Amino acid sequence: MKVGFIGLGHMGAGMAANLLRAGHQVTVYNRTLGKERALVEQGARAAGRVADACQGEAVVTMLADDRAVEGVVFGDQGVIGSLGPRAIHLSMSTISVALSESLARAHAKAGQRFVAAPVFGRPDVAAAGKLFIVAAGAPDAVTACSPLLEAMGQKTFSIGAEAQAANLVKLSGNFLLASVIEGLGEAMALVGKAGVDRHQYLELLTSTLFTAPVYKTYGGLIAEGKFEPAGFAAPLGYKDIRLTLAAADSLRVPMPVASLLRDRFLTLLAQGGEALDWSGIGQLAARDAGQVDRPR
Amino acid sequence: MKVGFIGLGHMGAGMAANLLRAGHQVTVYNRTLGKERALVEQGARAAGRVADACQGEAVVTMLADDRAVEGVVFGDQGVIGSLGPRAIHLSMSTISVALSESLARAHAKAGQRFVAAPVFGRPDVAAAGKLFIVAAGAPDAVTACSPLLEAMGQKTFSIGAEAQAANLVKLSGNFLLASVIEGLGEAMALVGKAGVDRHQYLELLTSTLFTAPVYKTYGGLIAEGKFEPAGFAAPLGYKDIRLTLAAADSLRVPMPVASLLRDRFLTLLAQGGEALDWSGIGQLAARDAGQVDRPR
Amino acid sequence: MKVGFIGLGHMGAGMAANLLRAGHQVTVYNRTLGKERALVEQGARAAGRVADACQGEAVVTMLADDRAVEGVVFGDQGVIGSLGPRAIHLSMSTISVALSESLARAHAKAGQRFVAAPVFGRPDVAAAGKLFIVAAGAPDAVTACSPLLEAMGQKTFSIGAEAQAANLVKLSGNFLLASVIEGLGEAMALVGKAGVDRHQYLELLTSTLFTAPVYKTYGGLIAEGKFEPAGFAAPLGYKDIRLTLAAADSLRVPMPVASLLRDRFLTLLAQGGEALDWSGIGQLAARDAGQVDRPR
Amino acid sequence: MKVGFIGLGHMGAGMAANLLRAGHQVTVYNRTLGKERALVEQGARAAGRVADACQGEAVVTMLADDRAVEGVVFGDQGVIGSLGPRAIHLSMSTISVALSESLARAHAKAGQRFVAAPVFGRPDVAAAGKLFIVAAGAPDAVTACSPLLEAMGQKTFSIGAEAQAANLVKLSGNFLLASVIEGLGEAMALVGKAGVDRHQYLELLTSTLFTAPVYKTYGGLIAEGKFEPAGFAAPLGYKDIRLTLAAADSLRVPMPVASLLRDRFLTLLAQGGEALDWSGIGQLAARDAGQVDRPR
Repeated sequence: MKVGFIGLGHMGAGMAANLLRAGHQVTVYNRTLGKERALVEQGARAAGRVADACQGEAVVTMLADDRAVEGVVFGDQGVIGSLGPRAIHLSMSTISVALSESLARAHAKAGQRFVAAPVFGRPDVAAAGKLFIVAAGAPDAVTACSPLLEAMGQKTFSIGAEAQAANLVKLSGNFLLASVIEGLGEAMALVGKAGVDRHQYLELLTSTLFTAPVYKTYGGLIAEGKFEPAGFAAPLGYKDIRLTLAAADSLRVPMPVASLLRDRFLTLLAQGGEALDWSGIGQLAARDAGQVDRPR
Repeated sequence: MKVGFIGLGHMGAGMAANLLRAGHQVTVYNRTLGKERALVEQGARAAGRVADACQGEAVVTMLADDRAVEGVVFGDQGVIGSLGPRAIHLSMSTISVALSESLARAHAKAGQRFVAAPVFGRPDVAAAGKLFIVAAGAPDAVTACSPLLEAMGQKTFSIGAEAQAANLVKLSGNFLLASVIEGLGEAMALVGKAGVDRHQYLELLTSTLFTAPVYKTYGGLIAEGKFEPAGFAAPLGYKDIRLTLAAADSLRVPMPVASLLRDRFLTLLAQGGEALDWSGIGQLAARDAGQVDRPR
Repeated sequence: MKVGFIGLGHMGAGMAANLLRAGHQVTVYNRTLGKERALVEQGARAAGRVADACQGEAVVTMLADDRAVEGVVFGDQGVIGSLGPRAIHLSMSTISVALSESLARAHAKAGQRFVAAPVFGRPDVAAAGKLFIVAAGAPDAVTACSPLLEAMGQKTFSIGAEAQAANLVKLSGNFLLASVIEGLGEAMALVGKAGVDRHQYLELLTSTLFTAPVYKTYGGLIAEGKFEPAGFAAPLGYKDIRLTLAAADSLRVPMPVASLLRDRFLTLLAQGGEALDWSGIGQLAARDAGQVDRPR
Repeated sequence: MKVGFIGLGHMGAGMAANLLRAGHQVTVYNRTLGKERALVEQGARAAGRVADACQGEAVVTMLADDRAVEGVVFGDQGVIGSLGPRAIHLSMSTISVALSESLARAHAKAGQRFVAAPVFGRPDVAAAGKLFIVAAGAPDAVTACSPLLEAMGQKTFSIGAEAQAANLVKLSGNFLLASVIEGLGEAMALVGKAGVDRHQYLELLTSTLFTAPVYKTYGGLIAEGKFEPAGFAAPLGYKDIRLTLAAADSLRVPMPVASLLRDRFLTLLAQGGEALDWSGIGQLAARDAGQVDRPR
């Protein structure tokens, strides 16, 4: 397929490379220059403007947040102004449910198609083409994107025609991850203060009931008390919890653990934790218990 | 080994049978008669009194709660009064940290040995000899119990000389399970109210990030909204959260998620949920969101 | 003074009447017609458009929410477009801190002055000219508004030059009121379930430690379980807690009770409580305790 | 009346003095010697043993906690063993609901009468005879105590025949006070971080909506950030919240604010706050917001 790719950050660079590897014709764009070079060497064309990346059958966006997506989509000569009739905007960023709804409406009005397809996985997983993808949108549009999704992920879950549902599911997944971090943080503060070795405790948990890799990953960071460098930075985790709560506001769903997580992230950030991994909230229970200083 | 076994409930019956199967000489006791029969057919001796089960090298207790354990241990002609010098009380029940400390002191005073070895696993796992066991106590005593632990579990984690640490770790494990239930309950209330199919959502979660079987087990119950018959009844879950919080009180560790879980269990029980599975708390978020009635 | 008054709802009507009574020359405007009539009889002039109310030394706005304020201020021929140089916009609505900041900037840019002066008090208090007013803005502007503020309130607290601080203080006051409601709701659920008479209990509280009238007012509603008609409707209470949390987000202040209140309001609204008084959240503890059905 | 008085601490000394002043014949007892001297000078008799204080129509107990009360009541030659038939134990300490129930049962069994009459007020209020008293027990017994209650308090609220209800009401009152502290702590953290002067803010609150003296008292301590010396020490506040939650457990009433307060006290105590006033929890929000260090 002939496609554009906007957003060549840690995630996007690997995803675009996989599209190239699968034989697609890819025109890449990034706001700051330089990131496109490696991809051009792999066969990509470099776009000087957003509009240049919107000349194919589809354009993928993989950006940091709502503001960045709004910037390239609604701005002068943005995606909506540039994409051809029936062409598809495949939005893979983690954005708010509300923005996803706006995008769906705006593209429909412009005679274009919109698919939301946020992903689970860190940069290394993206580079390996092993992302899990949650896709939603008009069935014909989702189907049309299949060759792209297959090139970037190990599995795609299609969850219906309402695009924004995919974004909600993505946010809920990050909420669940953060709740695992909080649970582990409290449990480790408890057993740690009683003198149980944290690493041995984690080994026990992860080889019995909590075998999912996320327990090993985040439990390890908490046991170690080491939150730098950040794999996924605290401000991003905070953003996702806020977006989760914003969706819960609209849907009128009280989520007390999400509320607690919001307070945890606020605490972490208020105390200088901007650069820490989001699992730094997992040390706040131990801090409150007087065992450790604030997370570093 | 020549051992006694006190407590032939859903868990204990299978555990005692595995001791017999491994060739140990087992004298079994249960407060209410009849439960010993099947085991006697498998070669066990039946004890008419607690004291009769305390004549060997060790006696295992596997009882419902603190009160039941106190009843057989401290009562007239109880375990402490009957066990020989250097003989071992292997306490496998889920009991409070405080009681475990009392037991350790009382046995030490009586010249006996005490090992706390609570387990993770449901009755079918106990019957299959596949329990995970967390053991703590004097190293020589834990070592002496190895043949018994190996017969009952697939793996034993020895976590030190302080017996009560094993009980704390066990309680923390149930706290983590309950926090998984709460997290899933909130996430499902959120996506469910947006119209996402709960079963499809769970399939997505459990085949991607949350592969631990507990997510499938409890997520399935919540997606189905079916909490009867109880695999692990709500009052027992409540008891374990209370014991977790009691330990947190003593250690001075604030645990906000545990506090929330306590309130969830109180709500469930206050509304007639005595007979439900403890994962019934996972429906309270959806109830608060106006999607469902109270859990049934 | 020659002033305009925009927003003749339950609160605004009484406030404008007090300005007239104090001898000010008042031009009133309301989006829906008819509400101006009674005031015209008292000597007011009726404005057909927002701009007509912006021809004096100052214009007061007393509107329902951010959206309404944005509508009259920024819209075509709105307050900013119509107010003369150095004229003052006296904003008395309960609005967000962020909007207050925007207004201050926009008026400054237009060469106008801005004073935020939200109020405490219900409609009967407004009608009696007994409001408590929290004012902030450039000292000269606040001073210039004194004759107006004195006509509408029993006391004005000037809290500095940053206009938005007044809005923050107002929101924090509503947060404190809601936290009183929640506290009373939990305490009454507790003693009520033990058989203590709720009215007798409230009498005891309010004649000893909790003599502030708000305890009597809200305690009475909760003891009675009667939340209609609404004095201050649940959606407005919810809005103010959300605005409080939005300010807390910007300032990075974790507020766990505010988070709980947000969840309480979501629960109330999710279960059909739109028309209830905001103190309806005070019945949720009793509902969770199985004593009463949902608030009505 | 001829009465005994057990417990001559900060509160009890003043209460016993008021009994003497009202003309009652009082025999006083305190575990540690010396505290009885001043009272003896005022006309009291000193008892060498608990039993000596139990020879009259009634004996008042005013002790620190459950353990202390159990010690004098159930111990060898304790109150139950010493009090005459139909004589009254007037229990004025802040104790658990469960202990109050036990005391009522034990006295009934011994042919004695029991009245629970905990108080609201600090030592200076006790000395002035201005306590608020919450009394419950058999009507004849409460009536018989009237001359004593009138001597010690400014007002007695009789709330029925179930003695433990009085203890529950007392605990709920302390819960409400602690929730005021928490609310003020969060509000002050919010406005304080925005630069509003805390003292000015408190002045505004307490002269408008929150006129009850408790707002002034605790708000002042929080605004000042000064928690020593303690008027009511943090461990006592923690104890009362725990007793409140214990009662809530028995009654099955979820109380999320009480749960939060428990975590706040645990945090305060875990960080060395043993000697602080209980209002020290009101600084934890500001600490989490990065404004101040831990409470001192």
